Amino acid sequence: MSLLPEPVAVLIAALGRLPGIGPRSAERLALHLVQSDSVSIECLAESLLDAKKRVGFCSICGALTEQQPCVICSDNGRDPSSICVVETAVDVINIEKSGAFSGRFHVLGGKVSPLNGVGPEDLRISELESRLHDVKEIILALGTDVEGDATSTYLAQRLSSKALKVTRIAHGIPAGTGLEFADDLTLSRAMEGRREMQ
Amino acid sequence: MSLLPEPVAVLIAALGRLPGIGPRSAERLALHLVQSDSVSIECLAESLLDAKKRVGFCSICGALTEQQPCVICSDNGRDPSSICVVETAVDVINIEKSGAFSGRFHVLGGKVSPLNGVGPEDLRISELESRLHDVKEIILALGTDVEGDATSTYLAQRLSSKALKVTRIAHGIPAGTGLEFADDLTLSRAMEGRREMQ
Repeated sequence: MSLLPEPVAVLIAALGRLPGIGPRSAERLALHLVQSDSVSIECLAESLLDAKKRVGFCSICGALTEQQPCVICSDNGRDPSSICVVETAVDVINIEKSGAFSGRFHVLGGKVSPLNGVGPEDLRISELESRLHDVKEIILALGTDVEGDATSTYLAQRLSSKALKVTRIAHGIPAGTGLEFADDLTLSRAMEGRREMQ
Repeated sequence: MSLLPEPVAVLIAALGRLPGIGPRSAERLALHLVQSDSVSIECLAESLLDAKKRVGFCSICGALTEQQPCVICSDNGRDPSSICVVETAVDVINIEKSGAFSGRFHVLGGKVSPLNGVGPEDLRISELESRLHDVKEIILALGTDVEGDATSTYLAQRLSSKALKVTRIAHGIPAGTGLEFADDLTLSRAMEGRREMQ
């Protein structure tokens, strides 16, 4: 007979499905939660439902938003001639934080991954193609893993017939670290991507 | 202007208050949750509320339970002559898992900790004293830190006038490890607690 009350076991299972939460962490969290006061647990449950209810994806670019279209797509001050293509809605937030880009975004919703059964038709590529009028540059800001590389190559080929420039963000040594922390692939990419100093 | 929708920021704050969840993890979890399907997020919110609503503390021993009194307190097969005193309701579950104890439990609800403003009167000690009829042994299974030591000593003194034995669980080298992994204090406690081999 297990001493763990059934609702606690259900909660542990639900928490264990979250990314980065293992079975031990899920148990620790669940037992903390049932022992904490009602207000904080209700506040957590409410913020979960509230976030899900109020936050959706922008119908144009696919970023997280409370309004349609999102603040970026409805901002006339942003450069409409360049679109930055990213994998997930979270990437939009990260690039915006950096302040390095002033154009529009387009969220693919993943990357081509035959092993996981994700083909180009599962991504928001035709939605991207319908946005290409007046666009002069597509900046691919996908991951640097095998699938990110394959998706970038695929997109560059598919868009090559259009009258626009397709670029990919640079890969190299991260800012603020020495060469000793970079792996071989990063080093060889950094070498390939070298630029003449002014 | 932050791109993070306000309900997501609220959710990140709520998740960040959980133990072991730092700001980065909270952000990652929240963004995963708002991007996942409605069913899984509702299931999580519901299991939170359900666990809090249905699970409470046993009125006798203080363990987590769905019924009053809990399954251990209402089990006549368990030895009523020994009570194992623990800090939290979770400790009961852990000791039960080990199968090493067949008596009753008593949850103190913490340990004496002057720095955190927790005195003996904040713990369930008088509740323990009201359960002492027919009890022959009190087993103290509190932590081995300074506060656990102080609480054990305090309880042993306070209960010394009663006609019962007060014992404390052994501290020493954990099972399955070598001496090289034990710190000085653990080694000296293990030495103190040595027993004659049969």
